Amino acid sequence: MPTHFIDQLAAAVRRRRSAICAGLDPRLGSLPPALVGDSPPERPADQAELFRQFCCEVVDVVADKAPVVKPQAAFFEELGPAGMQALAAVIAHARRRDLLVLVDGKRNDIGSTAEAYARGWLGPHSPWQADALTVSPYLGADSLQPFVDWAAPAGAGVFVLVKTSNPGGGLLQDLPAPDRPVYRHVAALVEQLAERTVGDCGYGLVGAVVGATYPEQLAELRAAMPHAWLLIPGYGSQGGRAVDAAPGFDGAGLGAVVNNSRGLIFAYQREPYRSRYQPHQWQRAVDDAARDMLAELAECVPSPPA
Amino acid sequence: MPTHFIDQLAAAVRRRRSAICAGLDPRLGSLPPALVGDSPPERPADQAELFRQFCCEVVDVVADKAPVVKPQAAFFEELGPAGMQALAAVIAHARRRDLLVLVDGKRNDIGSTAEAYARGWLGPHSPWQADALTVSPYLGADSLQPFVDWAAPAGAGVFVLVKTSNPGGGLLQDLPAPDRPVYRHVAALVEQLAERTVGDCGYGLVGAVVGATYPEQLAELRAAMPHAWLLIPGYGSQGGRAVDAAPGFDGAGLGAVVNNSRGLIFAYQREPYRSRYQPHQWQRAVDDAARDMLAELAECVPSPPA
Repeated sequence: MPTHFIDQLAAAVRRRRSAICAGLDPRLGSLPPALVGDSPPERPADQAELFRQFCCEVVDVVADKAPVVKPQAAFFEELGPAGMQALAAVIAHARRRDLLVLVDGKRNDIGSTAEAYARGWLGPHSPWQADALTVSPYLGADSLQPFVDWAAPAGAGVFVLVKTSNPGGGLLQDLPAPDRPVYRHVAALVEQLAERTVGDCGYGLVGAVVGATYPEQLAELRAAMPHAWLLIPGYGSQGGRAVDAAPGFDGAGLGAVVNNSRGLIFAYQREPYRSRYQPHQWQRAVDDAARDMLAELAECVPSPPA
Repeated sequence: MPTHFIDQLAAAVRRRRSAICAGLDPRLGSLPPALVGDSPPERPADQAELFRQFCCEVVDVVADKAPVVKPQAAFFEELGPAGMQALAAVIAHARRRDLLVLVDGKRNDIGSTAEAYARGWLGPHSPWQADALTVSPYLGADSLQPFVDWAAPAGAGVFVLVKTSNPGGGLLQDLPAPDRPVYRHVAALVEQLAERTVGDCGYGLVGAVVGATYPEQLAELRAAMPHAWLLIPGYGSQGGRAVDAAPGFDGAGLGAVVNNSRGLIFAYQREPYRSRYQPHQWQRAVDDAARDMLAELAECVPSPPA
């Protein structure tokens, strides 16, 4: 087992022949009624227990089809301290199922404070035990460095926001600055950090978040950051398709994972799964949706070598 | 008591005749030995209990000299779930002491996920019960809107990173884009949101983070965002002086709070306080440092009307 995080990720993708990142975005109003019962609980602690149970069951379903899961910190944080305990439990469960855990926290701060985030989140010996964390670049290179410094010895990685999937992301990211957009400046920094931390698989510990909702920029950014593994959000409910995500991969079918959150974990709500299964069979809907996503990706992305 | 957050802040500044924001950045290695004992505990839960105790004591000392405290989420998060419970306890204690609580989390995400952060953190009826939260603008206007929408009914506010205090902040923030720096684009958005949410005091629910370490840009940004209350970090240990922070205030001594973290809470470590007090009197060092900061500010900033 390689200890360099990105080699672990590449190995996990190869082993499962899958580049799915399963996004764990528990939302109370979307949880399967079979789990919630007649009326959702009011106490945050009871809601958090439902989140834990739901996410752990999703983890069990996807464990053989996704190399990595991405819990969204916001939804756990929304429930206060009880939610954070549930997050820790979900991370621990995913690790027991041999999944890599990428926490979507979009954290950052200046120097020594960024270091506190890095120490808290990154690596199997940290309190949260995440394998990787998403970080925001607005505070500049000296705010990213502590994450990079900490990631290597911790056996962990970071994914820097470069070009996000939301409609308004361009307001700042696309500003001409002055000869190229802001996101290209961030990409240049990410590539530099990725190249310096490269593993056996050819990618570095510093990856980039680039949305599937802007396929042209995705191709541009794949070329601009040859050493950065990409986390591609925006697939599914945000409108991105497999063909839109495909430019994020290299010729061997590596170099990217495609995230799917709602489209996977709440698949029971949508067709064809809604008609196919009874409400208490929501896990089978997750399973089918993951298989269907794998098939869609296989049409446009080379299968990674086993 | 006004219910609009920014009017509460203005009233609190007036009542105490103070624009100090006391930054609660607990770091295990800097805690007073009188509190920690011979050797710091190893279990995160025990460390978190020390953080809680230390921050609550700091709150008690500054309660009559600072209108607002700013717990730094990173240091609590660093300890895992136990740290988050300590953070909740510190927030609750500060509220009981009639202090406003601005959580420094630099959070953000896209649309509905940003909403989860807003619901979780903002207002007295949220799980965390913060009065305000710092947020990052990299994801654009549609990522800020959920915070603004939620802040008003919750009786809370948000502070958007505009020009941060760290040396490397300029890498992205100062990029010419193309006719004005990136931070001016963010400032224009903040001013728009502030103007739309203006309270009786003339400022809006959306404020801005602008470092004291760049006094020229601070003056420029004060003028560019006449409706945005400023949170000014970088004073003290980061090199900013009262005279550097002064351009952030309006003619009536309102419109800004100046944060001091290490310089205040760990004052026992530095002169003249180190020589003045015994180790077990670290609270008196905090008290003196707050008084000295008030005196320094009074030399360059008009005293707010009582």
